[in-house]
Amino acid sequence: MKRMLLTIAYDGSSYSGWQRQKDDTIETVEKYLEKGLSKLFGTEIDCVGSSRTDKGVSALGQRVTIDVETTIPGRKMPLASKAFLPDDIVIVEGEEVPMDFHVRYDVKSKTYEYKILNASVQNPLIRNMTHFIYDPLDVEKMDAAAKYFVGEHDFKAVCSTENATKTTVRKVYSMNVEKEGDIIKITVSGNGFLYNMIRIMVGTLIEVGKGKIAPEEIKNILQSRDRTKAGPTAPPNGLCLMCINY
Amino acid sequence: MKRMLLTIAYDGSSYSGWQRQKDDTIETVEKYLEKGLSKLFGTEIDCVGSSRTDKGVSALGQRVTIDVETTIPGRKMPLASKAFLPDDIVIVEGEEVPMDFHVRYDVKSKTYEYKILNASVQNPLIRNMTHFIYDPLDVEKMDAAAKYFVGEHDFKAVCSTENATKTTVRKVYSMNVEKEGDIIKITVSGNGFLYNMIRIMVGTLIEVGKGKIAPEEIKNILQSRDRTKAGPTAPPNGLCLMCINY
Repeated sequence: MKRMLLTIAYDGSSYSGWQRQKDDTIETVEKYLEKGLSKLFGTEIDCVGSSRTDKGVSALGQRVTIDVETTIPGRKMPLASKAFLPDDIVIVEGEEVPMDFHVRYDVKSKTYEYKILNASVQNPLIRNMTHFIYDPLDVEKMDAAAKYFVGEHDFKAVCSTENATKTTVRKVYSMNVEKEGDIIKITVSGNGFLYNMIRIMVGTLIEVGKGKIAPEEIKNILQSRDRTKAGPTAPPNGLCLMCINY
Repeated sequence: MKRMLLTIAYDGSSYSGWQRQKDDTIETVEKYLEKGLSKLFGTEIDCVGSSRTDKGVSALGQRVTIDVETTIPGRKMPLASKAFLPDDIVIVEGEEVPMDFHVRYDVKSKTYEYKILNASVQNPLIRNMTHFIYDPLDVEKMDAAAKYFVGEHDFKAVCSTENATKTTVRKVYSMNVEKEGDIIKITVSGNGFLYNMIRIMVGTLIEVGKGKIAPEEIKNILQSRDRTKAGPTAPPNGLCLMCINY
């Protein structure tokens, strides 16, 4: 038996999120990955995923471990799995890891990217990976505001009220907002994120970009620990899990 | 009655091409555009499109005229039409043109872009707008080969045998191959293109990139007027109609 660490990319737009549901008619990424890998290995495969991405969220660097008896080396997994997975789910990398490696507990940092198409018209070719906003956003103010999220804070004000974790303290290592052409890219790294935390931080930065919230107000929003003080939850299609480091 | 020139963007991946078919159960971009505009104006609208893009081909700059009795100014068409069109079809621009303007006959040039993802793994987020090739391609050779297509030539060797136009002579104004990161971008402008001509030129350049055809061989291929001498037809998903000038 060996443990393999797989890096997975997927277009989340057709799925009800990462995590396989009790109701197996619900289309999730994990369901299709487990089905495909079970076919490949001829035995039932259980995946342990690192991040439970929401419905509509995509990934280029999701991480997953599987325990399996096989002669296929980890590095061959992209090629070996190809025919068993749908077009919108791809194994990007594979490697063998020690049996005591844990894909969730051993995480050092996670990086997400949120993309906004800030233009006068929508571009239908990238609608599944950008959130379209017509009103011009002030990127400098958004970047200044983002800096208030950096550091160890209680993020209760910017997580869903459905968040179930014991503590709402997390550490954000960096958060940057930059514009390339019509695309505003928000990149955030941290040791972990609460339920909907990134989408609420982004929704709050969008309010900053529109001039409705001052950048320095972020400090008070965090201190309030009150979800109603922050901006709305930004839609999932702009969000992509970029990488997870161990 | 006024004639409006509309610029249309669409993700062609869910459609059987641009042109509306006699069998109206076939999903085409023109069908949905005509349906949406007919609802908007409360009267049957006929579109005249400039390019008959194939099944799976996308556009950022398709051009269409409609004749309609309306007080809506052309420039308001993007906003006015939004609620009547599916997510993957967008009116990008609108303007009024003289009644004798013709969207096909008055074309000065058309520009297409073909994108290849040349990498060791597929990126599922851009699978609908790039053609994935694993083997490393020689971009310099492809660009050198592309130059042989530039100019006025008989393009019979690089058009589908189903091509129905009287003459197979066309003028290619420019053709460039460049690489940005993992993406190889082939940009071609001309006064018009034969059926499948761009996809066959691209398919031939890919053979050049793989070292199977020498760049200078393009000259002989064109002179042969023989479809079997050229490379295979590249798949549609990498192709996008970028702009049409008048």
